[in-house]
Amino acid sequence: MTTMEMLERAKKAKAKAAQLTSGMKNLALDKMAEMLVEKTDEILKANETDLEKAKGVIGDVMLDRLRLTKERILSMANGIREVMSLEDPAGKTLAEFERPNGLKVTKISVPLGVVAIIFESRPNVAADAAALCIKSGNVCVLRGGKEAYASVGAIVEAMRDGLEKAGLAKDMISRVEDITRAGANELMTARGYVDLLIPRGGAGLIRACVDNARVPVIETGTGICHIFVDESADFEKALAIIENAKTSRPSVCNAEEVLLVHQAIAGKFLPLVKKRLTDDRKNNHPVELRLDARAMEIIDGVKASDADFDTEFLDYVLAVGVKDDLNAAIEHISLHSTGHSDAIITEDENAKTAFIASVDSAAVYVNASTRFTDGGEFGLGCEMGISTQKLHARGPMGLEALTGYKYVVTGNGHIR
Amino acid sequence: MTTMEMLERAKKAKAKAAQLTSGMKNLALDKMAEMLVEKTDEILKANETDLEKAKGVIGDVMLDRLRLTKERILSMANGIREVMSLEDPAGKTLAEFERPNGLKVTKISVPLGVVAIIFESRPNVAADAAALCIKSGNVCVLRGGKEAYASVGAIVEAMRDGLEKAGLAKDMISRVEDITRAGANELMTARGYVDLLIPRGGAGLIRACVDNARVPVIETGTGICHIFVDESADFEKALAIIENAKTSRPSVCNAEEVLLVHQAIAGKFLPLVKKRLTDDRKNNHPVELRLDARAMEIIDGVKASDADFDTEFLDYVLAVGVKDDLNAAIEHISLHSTGHSDAIITEDENAKTAFIASVDSAAVYVNASTRFTDGGEFGLGCEMGISTQKLHARGPMGLEALTGYKYVVTGNGHIR
Repeated sequence: MTTMEMLERAKKAKAKAAQLTSGMKNLALDKMAEMLVEKTDEILKANETDLEKAKGVIGDVMLDRLRLTKERILSMANGIREVMSLEDPAGKTLAEFERPNGLKVTKISVPLGVVAIIFESRPNVAADAAALCIKSGNVCVLRGGKEAYASVGAIVEAMRDGLEKAGLAKDMISRVEDITRAGANELMTARGYVDLLIPRGGAGLIRACVDNARVPVIETGTGICHIFVDESADFEKALAIIENAKTSRPSVCNAEEVLLVHQAIAGKFLPLVKKRLTDDRKNNHPVELRLDARAMEIIDGVKASDADFDTEFLDYVLAVGVKDDLNAAIEHISLHSTGHSDAIITEDENAKTAFIASVDSAAVYVNASTRFTDGGEFGLGCEMGISTQKLHARGPMGLEALTGYKYVVTGNGHIR
Repeated sequence: MTTMEMLERAKKAKAKAAQLTSGMKNLALDKMAEMLVEKTDEILKANETDLEKAKGVIGDVMLDRLRLTKERILSMANGIREVMSLEDPAGKTLAEFERPNGLKVTKISVPLGVVAIIFESRPNVAADAAALCIKSGNVCVLRGGKEAYASVGAIVEAMRDGLEKAGLAKDMISRVEDITRAGANELMTARGYVDLLIPRGGAGLIRACVDNARVPVIETGTGICHIFVDESADFEKALAIIENAKTSRPSVCNAEEVLLVHQAIAGKFLPLVKKRLTDDRKNNHPVELRLDARAMEIIDGVKASDADFDTEFLDYVLAVGVKDDLNAAIEHISLHSTGHSDAIITEDENAKTAFIASVDSAAVYVNASTRFTDGGEFGLGCEMGISTQKLHARGPMGLEALTGYKYVVTGNGHIR
């Protein structure tokens, strides 16, 4: 099917999806999960095809992301079932008031319509995204990476069968078959068809969407996250948080990339950082420290380039700088942060207040690891990605981020 | 000053603007209003220059929009002072919760940052927009049409003087001096500088922004608004609403452009429409009716082309169609509405419910004129434009639409 044919169908399914009751949505999710499990063999076979083609073409990390197992499929199905228990975000009365002239105005949450997700090699994104779309009354259009072509196809087919079993229109979930660059562009420029486009993947994909899209886009996921250790910091807390934020999962967007230290404590604290992140981790991924000139005077390490303070390493690498004071740290963060997650470690109430007020990131932390920026950790129950823009949704995007609102205005012959 | 120099300054003013207290914001607004009145002569002189240049180049309606008077300047100043009484939308706690692990999460409303407004010939938009930006803690960047160049310059200068009198950074309000197309493009593509771009003007301007922008945009204002007269409609209410929606101010986006009538009553109702909109208005802007084939069988009028049902006339012209039933009307609206404001006139509760559930427009009306879609009429106290997109803000955009949010996460050494 061409992308435009598919989008025509998706658009037609919009009104039906928007009017599903919560019960029907949950039935759909249940059947989608059921069919994923039932079609495990087909999905694994399709995945095998993808893996065969990808061997030697993509690296081991990517191959692992692409690989499905019986357990992974079961876990996808369980993920879909978990969404059943979340509150339906659509159809809520957000505000209700009567105007002096007697007009009644009600602001009601509504699905956005057709939500398109462009992602890369992890096929399970298809199930996560579809579940969130169905629960919020949206139609879901998926475009996976070309490495995952057969896998995503099989997963989408299983979910569409689930919709059919629930007595619903299959076109509430579909995928772009054309995985050429032109196909992606067609999706990005489908004004009037795509109500929201969410790119989930690396910086290159997100940049391509922002540059080419003519439909509304939410930028996700680029995180150059900072931790500033203030002069009043509790060193033990600070070291634990720094190690956790840098090393617990360096490949994710909420991992720490830059450490800034107050000059008053740098002489004492930086040697402890070096011990904790390098010496103590000799056999367990030691962290490469890239130091600015002032840090170089205190500890040994690689000399940092300017670019190191603007790089999302996604690896066991940490840029380290010494700052005159809290204000200098805040200024550095305002210039170099991607607005994802930034933290201060301090015991000083004034420093906390100033940092919170001045740092304009989706998540601003006090004495906690940046790794908590996550839909599950924030209690949203799920996540469609982490928005790093300020419009519409910011930070972890849960179900609510997949809705907008409309005004219902009721009169009795009112004219203006 | 080049656009980039100006944007650098605007970006620097962001942190200061975001941290203004409500009291400081109101002082700024008061001084801005004061200086506008104080500089009335300068502003009128600048306006005279613009008017001289524009004579013969633009039409009378546009010339009138461009023209300032002492009264209009006073009214701009009063408009700014009215914003003082509105609630500060920034710094509000939107949600607050503690996670099972003890992490405290607070969701706080924050200004968007730098808000750019591109507008056309009405210079007073500069004062409205600046007032809303300052009240919400945003930095305001203005780009008026080239016809209003000197007028907007004088208004902006007066408001900047007001900021200075209030002891604040003048760069919280500025304007693009380069009014070439390249200058507009520079603004639309200033990623990292412009947090939100709002085009206010005709369809051409909005289309240009959507096509060229690389910064977040909110589409405003195109309204192909429908009124459907159901079989159970009260004819008197219906006629009053239709006349009001079409003729009270045909040049605005919430005016009616299309009338749809249920076939069961068309034979009786359409002659009444013809009488009310044409015969009764012989000496007062009679409305030109453009009729579909079924309406042509009932009354006289111009035969409508297909395009007439997709045109924002902004004039005393109304496309009229006869529909089989409610569902046919809903289907027509879903295909042809711009999602601004659409109304049903009915006394039937089931029809109301179905119309409200199925019509996906920013404002859905029951027995009231579409002309009420307006920030003031909705009780928002002001308006930055009417959004016709679903992301972030929909319908009349008040102060709240100029804010986003951030999460503040407080722990005590929490790691994940």
